[in-house]
Amino acid sequence: MTKKYSIGIDYGTQSGRVLLVEVETGREIATMVTSYKHGVIEDCLPGTDIKLGQDWALQHPDDYIDVIKTIPEVIKHAGVRPEDVIGIGVDFTSCTILPIKKDGTPLCFLDEYRNTPNAWVKLWKHHAAQKQANKLNEIAAERGEAFLSLYGGKISSEWMIPKIMQVLEESPEIFDAADLFIEAGDWVVMKIIGEKVISSCSAGYKALWQKQTGYPEEVFFKALDPRLEKVVDEKLSREVYPIGHQAGFLTEAAASLTGLTTRTAVSTFICDAPVALPAVGVTEPGKMVMVMGTSLCHFILSEEEVKVEGICGSVEDGAMPGLFGYESGQSAVGDIFEWFMKNCVPAEYHREAEEQNIDIYRLLENKASRLKPGESGLLALDWWNGNRSPLVDADLSGIILGLTLSTKPEEMYRALLEATAFGTNLIIETHKNAGIDVNELVACGGLSQKNKLLMQIFSDVTNMKIHIAGSPQTPALGAAIYGAVAAGKVNSGYDNVFDASSRMANLLDDTYNPNQEHHQIYQQLFAEYKRLNEYFGRGLNDVMKRLKTLKKGDVTRHDNESIMAAR
Amino acid sequence: MTKKYSIGIDYGTQSGRVLLVEVETGREIATMVTSYKHGVIEDCLPGTDIKLGQDWALQHPDDYIDVIKTIPEVIKHAGVRPEDVIGIGVDFTSCTILPIKKDGTPLCFLDEYRNTPNAWVKLWKHHAAQKQANKLNEIAAERGEAFLSLYGGKISSEWMIPKIMQVLEESPEIFDAADLFIEAGDWVVMKIIGEKVISSCSAGYKALWQKQTGYPEEVFFKALDPRLEKVVDEKLSREVYPIGHQAGFLTEAAASLTGLTTRTAVSTFICDAPVALPAVGVTEPGKMVMVMGTSLCHFILSEEEVKVEGICGSVEDGAMPGLFGYESGQSAVGDIFEWFMKNCVPAEYHREAEEQNIDIYRLLENKASRLKPGESGLLALDWWNGNRSPLVDADLSGIILGLTLSTKPEEMYRALLEATAFGTNLIIETHKNAGIDVNELVACGGLSQKNKLLMQIFSDVTNMKIHIAGSPQTPALGAAIYGAVAAGKVNSGYDNVFDASSRMANLLDDTYNPNQEHHQIYQQLFAEYKRLNEYFGRGLNDVMKRLKTLKKGDVTRHDNESIMAAR
Repeated sequence: MTKKYSIGIDYGTQSGRVLLVEVETGREIATMVTSYKHGVIEDCLPGTDIKLGQDWALQHPDDYIDVIKTIPEVIKHAGVRPEDVIGIGVDFTSCTILPIKKDGTPLCFLDEYRNTPNAWVKLWKHHAAQKQANKLNEIAAERGEAFLSLYGGKISSEWMIPKIMQVLEESPEIFDAADLFIEAGDWVVMKIIGEKVISSCSAGYKALWQKQTGYPEEVFFKALDPRLEKVVDEKLSREVYPIGHQAGFLTEAAASLTGLTTRTAVSTFICDAPVALPAVGVTEPGKMVMVMGTSLCHFILSEEEVKVEGICGSVEDGAMPGLFGYESGQSAVGDIFEWFMKNCVPAEYHREAEEQNIDIYRLLENKASRLKPGESGLLALDWWNGNRSPLVDADLSGIILGLTLSTKPEEMYRALLEATAFGTNLIIETHKNAGIDVNELVACGGLSQKNKLLMQIFSDVTNMKIHIAGSPQTPALGAAIYGAVAAGKVNSGYDNVFDASSRMANLLDDTYNPNQEHHQIYQQLFAEYKRLNEYFGRGLNDVMKRLKTLKKGDVTRHDNESIMAAR
Repeated sequence: MTKKYSIGIDYGTQSGRVLLVEVETGREIATMVTSYKHGVIEDCLPGTDIKLGQDWALQHPDDYIDVIKTIPEVIKHAGVRPEDVIGIGVDFTSCTILPIKKDGTPLCFLDEYRNTPNAWVKLWKHHAAQKQANKLNEIAAERGEAFLSLYGGKISSEWMIPKIMQVLEESPEIFDAADLFIEAGDWVVMKIIGEKVISSCSAGYKALWQKQTGYPEEVFFKALDPRLEKVVDEKLSREVYPIGHQAGFLTEAAASLTGLTTRTAVSTFICDAPVALPAVGVTEPGKMVMVMGTSLCHFILSEEEVKVEGICGSVEDGAMPGLFGYESGQSAVGDIFEWFMKNCVPAEYHREAEEQNIDIYRLLENKASRLKPGESGLLALDWWNGNRSPLVDADLSGIILGLTLSTKPEEMYRALLEATAFGTNLIIETHKNAGIDVNELVACGGLSQKNKLLMQIFSDVTNMKIHIAGSPQTPALGAAIYGAVAAGKVNSGYDNVFDASSRMANLLDDTYNPNQEHHQIYQQLFAEYKRLNEYFGRGLNDVMKRLKTLKKGDVTRHDNESIMAAR
């Protein structure tokens, strides 16, 4: 029998990637990355002098189509017959939304609205709807809305409803003209299958939808703004499909655009973080997935719905069909290390790295590796960008404690690595206390593959085995897996993501295993971390908040903004 | 009438300085610095393979004589007649001691003892008598010795008695052979006047002597070691003379060595920190003198003896004849900034400094000057080398709090400057709470003349006017002033240090004056500093101590060592 293939399309912040995968094995055959021509639009609307406000971040829908247009080249390069590509899966940054007409046309493509910023795609990191998010949080809290507790107590300005509120308040004509506010991922799927099939993933994690209860009630939306009372029926969709669902098949037009056939199935879109789960073989409870980059997303599955403090969201069908997916996060991880490299590494170290012909990260990693746990006498709180989970507090800030005249840069660097591991350990502990098992860790994302010392420290601190993703493009692989599921066994794919993952997932053979001696020491340091966490994070000394208040010229407050950006 | 001159000889850690000063005006005529040939001896005894232990720091008495030998050149260079040099004052690092024979011969000059490390000069920063200091502190505390409270509750291993204990325990033959353990400053004076005239300054601040009560009782010394019972009578001196006292005149030999006459009077030696007081015109209560260098010494005078928490020492006649001199300190100030420059400044900043043709300190100062108080959102505790006053705790360590992804090096630098100012402000507050007035500040030492931003921050934080020493060699000027006092009015000098200081002191005309707007903000930040000071410094969270305990390989504990080194 001929080999069959699936395509994963992974839409990131700056570029999109097409990955062709062998369905039987998950083997990655060919890939192509396309940078978005318009990138992240932060200054002016494309081709105009129309200035955007502070914290705006838009995108151009054409850029998404450009990615799709590379599929023929990928297939050609791989030497694969179009009819052997049985499925397509799409993952996308989220919440990235746009207002469209019923037929799928983005309002920003219409001459009438082209010059209105609110007609464009609002990227996940568009942070200009903070006012609206604050209002939403206030009203939801006042009304005692039950959904709040499913999202760690606060809704981010990055999410669907605040972004729609901003459109309504600033450009009511756009709000009125929109037949639908849609996730860009759902829009791409709609574009290639010719109909609207909304995914449970972003609906659950970003649009307050829950499988059992649907969206919040109309009375809540009315309290936000009378014009929003019917927003769900008029501008969203109550029909929501689980991830892995076969959304449809390529239209003639899409088949022509991609060089594929109309028998290619397409899966519902999935957000770019949870899409990693099947790609690293995690389809059941017990293993926590860590998507490690500038920040860190944690996902853990459970058959039960429980309350976990400070999670980003708990969504049935959100990360794996039939299970509750708990997402939590640390708002800065790789970002802290980058901050350190940029701001705290002396010239002499750069010279040393040059001499050794290694990069500065490697130099610091080498030096820090020679230190034993506890040897530096340093302890840090990893709150450079606030604390996402479990404290949900953007106004917290970082600490380094234990500095002496003989403290070395590599000691500070190691303390920062350790602090992020303590942060994850606290999140694990929080889940366990809520009754959710965490037995092993599975890591993906650049950091997990590049920074061996970091991963060993995570293992030593958590006292857990850590598996590492084998693919350098885990999200795209995850998307391709969902593509194979959309095709179904009848078309040489899989009937469910569990089967697909068991064949197509890609993990390295080598794992990180905890060093017990180190773990003993880290238990002591973690106890100190927790003590400081309590003291500075739970109101015993709100010095960090007072310092932030003292900051001058801090007119544009970001509040819980940045910390919600778990990407 | 011919102009008269006085010479100040200032013995530092690495070099000695001779300064010729006009008695009538304090004008500095000529100076010469001599580096010690043997420097600080830390590895092997001079000319041998005899290894020293960890934390040892010795010196060679010949190096001190070499400094004296430059006097003829200074006089010649200045074109001054020897008979017009009416007095000599000597200041010296302290506690720097050596065992000698009755005639002044250092034991290390005798063939018999030359190869025994304990026969040599133990420099102030010889830190190998910690075991002995611990024992002393334990026994003194057990016995409830009243003197403890005069020295902040703990005696440093740098001081006289622990150093003598080390000699006794390790080299009893040296202890037995010594007719006297003497401060190197007293030894130099003895050397040039031909007799032993012990100064109250080091006796009071470093050897537990007090004007009213003398040394601790024999029963205490016996408790330390039965062989020490008679140590005061057998190895020290109960005759102690106030600073400014005319110790004697140059011997024939010394006159010949220096090119001066036997009519040149010599003052009792004075420690290198309090010697600054008359040189900056501080001879009365109310003005606190800050000797600002790698660490910071504070001196304030009072007519009354009161208990001040955590001071280094309160000594009658110690810093000014007839007054109680209160010494306190911060164990690291300039050292913290140097640590920062060495470890935390990115390569890019060094390039920028090069381009601007300024040094890296100036670049950081320029950048930090543009920040407003509170703007960085940072707060630091200046405990990089423990806390000397008021907590007297070497096991405390530094903190930087409030770090974010946008924190810049200049913000951290400014936070460190501010932290040292908060440290001084807390010391001032502690004095005021004990009933000692502090109305103005007078600063000397390199930092006070080089770092304008630091001084302005000190003024803004303390809300006090700050005068700055005009001389770049304040201690040598102070020594010269004491030389003029030793000569007395009858020899064209002065009868007391008050008169001498009023004519010879050297302060810049410009002062730093507090900016009220900044002070308001700093009051808020200082309140936060105090809150953290309480939390981490007074047992509410002993995390710093526990972290230090965790440090591996820290076999040689320094305990209260380094922080006592207020220099």
